[in-house]
Amino acid sequence: MLKAKIFVQLKASVLDPQGKAVSNSLHSLGYTAVSETRISKYIEISFESDDRATVMQQTEEICKNLLANPNTETYHFELEQQN
Amino acid sequence: MLKAKIFVQLKASVLDPQGKAVSNSLHSLGYTAVSETRISKYIEISFESDDRATVMQQTEEICKNLLANPNTETYHFELEQQN
Repeated sequence: MLKAKIFVQLKASVLDPQGKAVSNSLHSLGYTAVSETRISKYIEISFESDDRATVMQQTEEICKNLLANPNTETYHFELEQQN
Repeated sequence: MLKAKIFVQLKASVLDPQGKAVSNSLHSLGYTAVSETRISKYIEISFESDDRATVMQQTEEICKNLLANPNTETYHFELEQQN
């Protein structure tokens, strides 16, 4: 079994309103050292397969076609062997 | 400058409807090897500080009081030195 660990993040140039809201809350709560907050998605997909090449290719397709918005987001992932 | 890299995940016992929806979509698209999908939050907080002990303690408080719902979610984080 293989598990894909996928990060889908807003491009650095894209404003993150949810992160901005968290930063503002943290400042109000007294955490004045906080300079920036960015909120992203972390997705784990488990595959009933041990074929790394196929799972790698399928995960790439899934990120491109379903999980990430190519206009505003980037993604990266790694595969991990599961028992 | 320190950056806190925080994962906020649903407890394993809690149903993840968003992940279930993605799994169903992937099966419909022909990715039949997919057995489970879990969707989590990944949050990066940048601190204008190099005091690891304080930042560690503040991040712990922030996770507990703002970012994670203790009833349904768990969190873990690591600190990374930034230039």
